[in-house]
Amino acid sequence: MSLIVQKYGGTSVGTIERIQAVAEKVAASHGSGDQLVVAVSAMSGETNRLIGLANAIDEQPNLREMDVLVSTGEQVTIALLCMALQKLGIEARSYTGGQVRILTDNSHGKARIREIDGHRIEADLNAGCVVVVAGFQGSDEDGNITTLGRGGSDTTAVALAAALKADECQIYTDVDGVYTTDPRVVPQARRLEKITFEEMLEMASQGSKILQIRSVEFAGKYNVPLRVMSSFEEGPGTLITLEDDDQMEKPVVSGIAFNRDEAKLTIRGIPDQPGVAYKVLGAISAANIEIDVIVQNVAKDNSATITFTVHRNELVRAETLLKEIAADLGAQEVDSDSQIAKVSIVGVGMRSHAGVAAQMFEALSKEGINIQLITTSEIKITVVIEERYLELAVRALHSGFGLEGEGTEEV
Amino acid sequence: MSLIVQKYGGTSVGTIERIQAVAEKVAASHGSGDQLVVAVSAMSGETNRLIGLANAIDEQPNLREMDVLVSTGEQVTIALLCMALQKLGIEARSYTGGQVRILTDNSHGKARIREIDGHRIEADLNAGCVVVVAGFQGSDEDGNITTLGRGGSDTTAVALAAALKADECQIYTDVDGVYTTDPRVVPQARRLEKITFEEMLEMASQGSKILQIRSVEFAGKYNVPLRVMSSFEEGPGTLITLEDDDQMEKPVVSGIAFNRDEAKLTIRGIPDQPGVAYKVLGAISAANIEIDVIVQNVAKDNSATITFTVHRNELVRAETLLKEIAADLGAQEVDSDSQIAKVSIVGVGMRSHAGVAAQMFEALSKEGINIQLITTSEIKITVVIEERYLELAVRALHSGFGLEGEGTEEV
Repeated sequence: MSLIVQKYGGTSVGTIERIQAVAEKVAASHGSGDQLVVAVSAMSGETNRLIGLANAIDEQPNLREMDVLVSTGEQVTIALLCMALQKLGIEARSYTGGQVRILTDNSHGKARIREIDGHRIEADLNAGCVVVVAGFQGSDEDGNITTLGRGGSDTTAVALAAALKADECQIYTDVDGVYTTDPRVVPQARRLEKITFEEMLEMASQGSKILQIRSVEFAGKYNVPLRVMSSFEEGPGTLITLEDDDQMEKPVVSGIAFNRDEAKLTIRGIPDQPGVAYKVLGAISAANIEIDVIVQNVAKDNSATITFTVHRNELVRAETLLKEIAADLGAQEVDSDSQIAKVSIVGVGMRSHAGVAAQMFEALSKEGINIQLITTSEIKITVVIEERYLELAVRALHSGFGLEGEGTEEV
Repeated sequence: MSLIVQKYGGTSVGTIERIQAVAEKVAASHGSGDQLVVAVSAMSGETNRLIGLANAIDEQPNLREMDVLVSTGEQVTIALLCMALQKLGIEARSYTGGQVRILTDNSHGKARIREIDGHRIEADLNAGCVVVVAGFQGSDEDGNITTLGRGGSDTTAVALAAALKADECQIYTDVDGVYTTDPRVVPQARRLEKITFEEMLEMASQGSKILQIRSVEFAGKYNVPLRVMSSFEEGPGTLITLEDDDQMEKPVVSGIAFNRDEAKLTIRGIPDQPGVAYKVLGAISAANIEIDVIVQNVAKDNSATITFTVHRNELVRAETLLKEIAADLGAQEVDSDSQIAKVSIVGVGMRSHAGVAAQMFEALSKEGINIQLITTSEIKITVVIEERYLELAVRALHSGFGLEGEGTEEV
């Protein structure tokens, strides 16, 4: 008998019919003898409806009250899912985050989980009940309702799995797993049977659409086997785990991630001295503009060049700021480019393989794609290229690293 | 500085604009220096929407889960009202029933309040906060969410007022007070400045449309001064209190209550011996048919006649049952009449005044109205008459006991 935590998102529970379909899925797992804890989100649209009510009163409503308000969304779902399970003859009990109790800090709207008391859930499981828990929410030490922020239901599920030492945490979503790359760009993209937590994190630009980054970190930290599955189709999904022993078998590259939401800014001819990078990037961060890639090079005249990327929506604001900074520092020039794309190859295998970067650059070169920026991490190599070459680059790399294949292979 | 508990029902908080209007009312009271605790219902329509969701899954959903579901209705309102108060610059904090904590028994859907812990509220009040509490809900000893049943928000408000030893509990509703009788029947009906708990209970057939009976009993038990006021108009409303000292000044009759929802059943010629009333009425009650008036008379042949009233919707079922009982008991006959109405005069003053009944019967007799049944309690005399005379009877009694008057008088 396994203990499984399942999580169903807003789309999966978006209507009464879908809640009933989820109940059927849960019933099937329960029928096969597993103990089941189910975390659910609010019915899709409900959270936005509630936020709309709040904003009709105040554009910036009090965060404590906002949590009291939006946490009702999941509370509605847990009750309805329990009713649907009971209708199928399965004993089920619902709990809000505060009832479980999921203890969080008091950062309303973005609380972090501190502790989960699993005793009540365990008693119910041992009595043969399916336990349904409201995702996305908890309560602080004083019993105030808190929420974990958007997508927090994934984190709830992983935290429950960690606290209960579950055998697996299954995240049901609208895709049937994690792919070698986006199938809309590369039709030959394959679903991965397995991927490591680190790879999943590095695939973020693709993966973030499937799983909340924080939940993957959390799962990695507590070594909770995480499985991404489809709410709407049968199938084994993709298992996300610690690096496993058969690493020798693993291909060098597991997947290709990409992103075209960014723009590039360069400041040239700044004094090459301590504190300059801070002066440039600190001012951008202070304006609450998120920076992604950062590359610095030293030019031969002892001046430095720093290039970084920001979200395209922030380009105008960032460029204005950067020009002020340039004037302060006596820098030569600032330029920007929004027609860029970021492409990464990801794989724990590259740790033990030399020449992966060269192989990547060769694949791009063969297609005549110029590389503008390069950054690397231990298991990821990222390049920035002209946006119009993005699809070509992804296909070239997907094929260059042998990711195509018939059906799904274990990675 | 007074401590006031205010309660706003579903219609009063039915839209964002109305919630903002309630916030203005609360702000005005707060501005005049009172400490304020506000109990609110779900926005009108919301509870029915939630019940609709549940019934789409199960016609008879699990009661525990039903409470988890419908309690979200008030939770939404408390958050929105706090936001509206904060927007007006007033510090406000919301609490669900479980947070306060309103401890109830575990009868889901019709829980009874056992205890309220007022410490948290008192701390907030002393810090200058307005405290907003979700009506209609609490939690049991195990922390399960419970609801008090429809209309339970009145009870929440009264219970809070009792626990906090509030100076007054103000129930805001869509009428501006309690009237001597229904103004739709008697245009000269006056709003009462004051009425006793007992009178309010006896006026139930009229009063139940304004206040939940249970909350009046509760207020009487704990001597919480209760005031019925309008959410939409200014005015002092009607204060419901213990019998006050200036009783000498009180008129004999405070109000005329009436009801045309009932039907009358009579069983004649039953043996006049112990246990017969139980056999007749016990069988009706056992079928879950509520009985209102009961009158028994002894006929000269040592047989008895019992007459009672039930809701008109139950007449057919009750009559079928009564005929079976009659056959068992060897009774002579059973007959029924649905064209009846019940009219009562209510007043604590009649305790110390002889001749009130005679005065009532005289007033009816003058209009040629025949009395079918009479029952009395200490502060109420009820007659059953032909339905078509109802309005005439109410007007005759209203005038006969001098209840008309220009403007509102103290009763």
